[in-house]
Amino acid sequence: MDPSDFRRYGHELVDWIADYFEHPDRYPVLSRLTPGDIVSALPAEAPEDPESFDAIFADFERVLVPGLTHWNHPGFFAYFAISASPPGVLAEFLSAALNQQAMLWRTSPAATELEQVALGWLRKLLGLPEAFEGVIYDTASIATMHALIAAREAALPSARMKGLAGRPDVPPLRVYTSDQANLSVDKAMIAIGLGHDSLKKIAVNDRFEMRVDALEEAIARDRADGVLPIAVMPTVGTTVTTSVDPVPAIADVCARERLWLHVDAAYAGAAAMLASHAHVLAGAERADSVVVNPHKWLFTPFDLSAFFCRRMDVVRGAFSLRPDYLRSADRGDVRNLMDTGVQLGRRFRALKLWMILRSHGARGVREILSGHIALAQQFAAWVDEDPDFERLAPVPFSVVCFRWNPSASQLSEAELDAANERLVDAVNRQGDVFLSQARVGGKLAIRLAIGHLRTTGQHVRRAWDLLKTCSARPARAI
Amino acid sequence: MDPSDFRRYGHELVDWIADYFEHPDRYPVLSRLTPGDIVSALPAEAPEDPESFDAIFADFERVLVPGLTHWNHPGFFAYFAISASPPGVLAEFLSAALNQQAMLWRTSPAATELEQVALGWLRKLLGLPEAFEGVIYDTASIATMHALIAAREAALPSARMKGLAGRPDVPPLRVYTSDQANLSVDKAMIAIGLGHDSLKKIAVNDRFEMRVDALEEAIARDRADGVLPIAVMPTVGTTVTTSVDPVPAIADVCARERLWLHVDAAYAGAAAMLASHAHVLAGAERADSVVVNPHKWLFTPFDLSAFFCRRMDVVRGAFSLRPDYLRSADRGDVRNLMDTGVQLGRRFRALKLWMILRSHGARGVREILSGHIALAQQFAAWVDEDPDFERLAPVPFSVVCFRWNPSASQLSEAELDAANERLVDAVNRQGDVFLSQARVGGKLAIRLAIGHLRTTGQHVRRAWDLLKTCSARPARAI
Repeated sequence: MDPSDFRRYGHELVDWIADYFEHPDRYPVLSRLTPGDIVSALPAEAPEDPESFDAIFADFERVLVPGLTHWNHPGFFAYFAISASPPGVLAEFLSAALNQQAMLWRTSPAATELEQVALGWLRKLLGLPEAFEGVIYDTASIATMHALIAAREAALPSARMKGLAGRPDVPPLRVYTSDQANLSVDKAMIAIGLGHDSLKKIAVNDRFEMRVDALEEAIARDRADGVLPIAVMPTVGTTVTTSVDPVPAIADVCARERLWLHVDAAYAGAAAMLASHAHVLAGAERADSVVVNPHKWLFTPFDLSAFFCRRMDVVRGAFSLRPDYLRSADRGDVRNLMDTGVQLGRRFRALKLWMILRSHGARGVREILSGHIALAQQFAAWVDEDPDFERLAPVPFSVVCFRWNPSASQLSEAELDAANERLVDAVNRQGDVFLSQARVGGKLAIRLAIGHLRTTGQHVRRAWDLLKTCSARPARAI
Repeated sequence: MDPSDFRRYGHELVDWIADYFEHPDRYPVLSRLTPGDIVSALPAEAPEDPESFDAIFADFERVLVPGLTHWNHPGFFAYFAISASPPGVLAEFLSAALNQQAMLWRTSPAATELEQVALGWLRKLLGLPEAFEGVIYDTASIATMHALIAAREAALPSARMKGLAGRPDVPPLRVYTSDQANLSVDKAMIAIGLGHDSLKKIAVNDRFEMRVDALEEAIARDRADGVLPIAVMPTVGTTVTTSVDPVPAIADVCARERLWLHVDAAYAGAAAMLASHAHVLAGAERADSVVVNPHKWLFTPFDLSAFFCRRMDVVRGAFSLRPDYLRSADRGDVRNLMDTGVQLGRRFRALKLWMILRSHGARGVREILSGHIALAQQFAAWVDEDPDFERLAPVPFSVVCFRWNPSASQLSEAELDAANERLVDAVNRQGDVFLSQARVGGKLAIRLAIGHLRTTGQHVRRAWDLLKTCSARPARAI
């Protein structure tokens, strides 16, 4: 494809995407294909001869578009609703074209230094002190893994060279999180050789917040058993109910016990930009590391995870290896992103965050976040006022966990679970909204998450109307 | 930014990028900024009020463009030269707009199944058997890490739950690679808790290929010492000289010793599509896992690393954890990408690979690869024919390692190193080409890597002319 073809097809694509952004709601939120449909619709081998972009794009529209689940749909309320904001999409387009590979400062001064600038902006907006240095990873899973590696290296500096295996001098290690923590902590434990059993999941209170007394007890018991505690990983905005662990009290424990404190604020950290919610990052200023995901609640096209660390020297200490083929003549104190993690290559992700923060301005970002929170409060009020529905958790941010539970019904918990599962499926089948489900206190909850730029009161109302309509049928038939 | 603004700015951006692709050589390859220039040119805080995209883009051009190192420049010959091909860039634009997050099949059937299709195409083009299942990771560093985790789990299935620390039942573990292997192996060893010392770097022969006798000796010595060998990681196309380790003989050793065989073909694997080079992946069909990076030598915008694994059940066994909030009603045998690794979220990366393979066709891809190899052979011939230059390694693909070393000079090795370092700096300062340097057999080598779509004989000639001109000055003054 020569530059003139690129120009022609690029313009066509801009119009296609702009049309799509005008009406993402013309599609059903959830794809209606069944597994295997796409594989069977495409040839099993690459073509031998070049094909025109017209032909390729026609197949994209015919075969792939029906296989999209529309994360851009304003009725997407599942998991965490996210947004590919237009300035972020333009930035990604530019980033792909520039193809920067920011392993060393010299291989992309722009990507290296803009990362520092954009993360500095974000850090200040979040209210984190200057002692936190930032680095961009792809996902919170990778950020969490690096936090755990840093905790392991800080507790056991010999791990870098000697590892953990076959060492009688190394005791079992332990990490603590709540039983509401994200799966990424479990995966990171497995990946870095600590093992899943070494993750102790601390019980929560009735607001789904980590119980500090239970944490202290677990640490004391482990120490008595010869186990070495290395880190505590509280969450600000847990994955199901978005509860906030008591970070200030946990920070006290970590200081006293000399444990690495990693705060997972991947979803809810952004809310700290609001005066009304600045308190949710209280205590995080004393953390060793904090992760906030702009691709979750800051309108950034997936992927961009911001990792802030007060002891980035520990991360660098683990990963700074400079073979001679990557030696450069740049002065010694230059920042080379390859030193801050497993990945040698880094995309130019800072560009989208920088463009989004400028395009919205801090004020614009705050207005959108508080709008989402207000919509969730409105929905929670409808649930609370309706005798047929029951809220299952507090709503500190923009996620509501609830279930259908008519006060007059004589259904068992198992029957309620089944009825709610049928209800959420019935609602999702309509195509206008997509809700997810999860267990809250053992009960099957329906989960409505607000986070899309284009979601308005009308879309939230539609979700509520569908829930009411679909649940109006006799309970067993829902 | 509303859809009409997106449309307007999108069209402007298409023209800017098309202009850029027409003349990437109007910029110096290497940025001429000095560290700190960009940070000091930008405000330290995000703006409070929204800014227009015009203002943002003006700053992009004024502040960031001078800070780009142009990986798109046809004179980029450093590290591995890569290409953001136009269809790949369009695919990334679309991918950013669609914002698919392919953790579960249902969250993006299109991204999930197209990954299977595109990797199936690539697998067949590479000549790997159907027993290899593919998954896309961001980088080869992450692919290598997953290969090592799989090797660890296969050798020690209890590692997943119990980890490696504090276990008298677990011996020290060992992994083998050559002393020419990529840094990513070292980083992965550190990350997953095996430790850097547990990586044994086997000596190479005079063609920089792993010595199988030395490998066998090392394994025998380790077994005698009570160390448990778990994996061998040969390279097809090492990072400096692009040498090819003897994978068939190493596969024999791995079969006999029951070790995980991971073949790092990140750069050179693509060459196996050529009849002339199909042999470079000989033995890989017996591997447990193979990594090939389309973002290296398959014109794919960074990032896309293809991981092919014969035992993906081991990877899934480590990482399949399904909390109830990610439970879906899809039938049990559906493929969910979150099960194949640390990262829960996955971008829609398959789209670019699919569009690139169709846009070029297999024939088009082969023509470009063989063209790059021919250019490298031409350059190597110039080096060989010139009494002032010396080639330092064979040229199996598109990378040439050489140095200035006039037959009449009486310079010591240290003086030659210094002179070649000055030479490469002098050449790079001209702005038309960017060469890197590395140690080859202890000697400072200049490294010319060909891999860009727009690189022609004229650009390679320019590199040679600059080397001749700059080296014509008195040796000590180079």
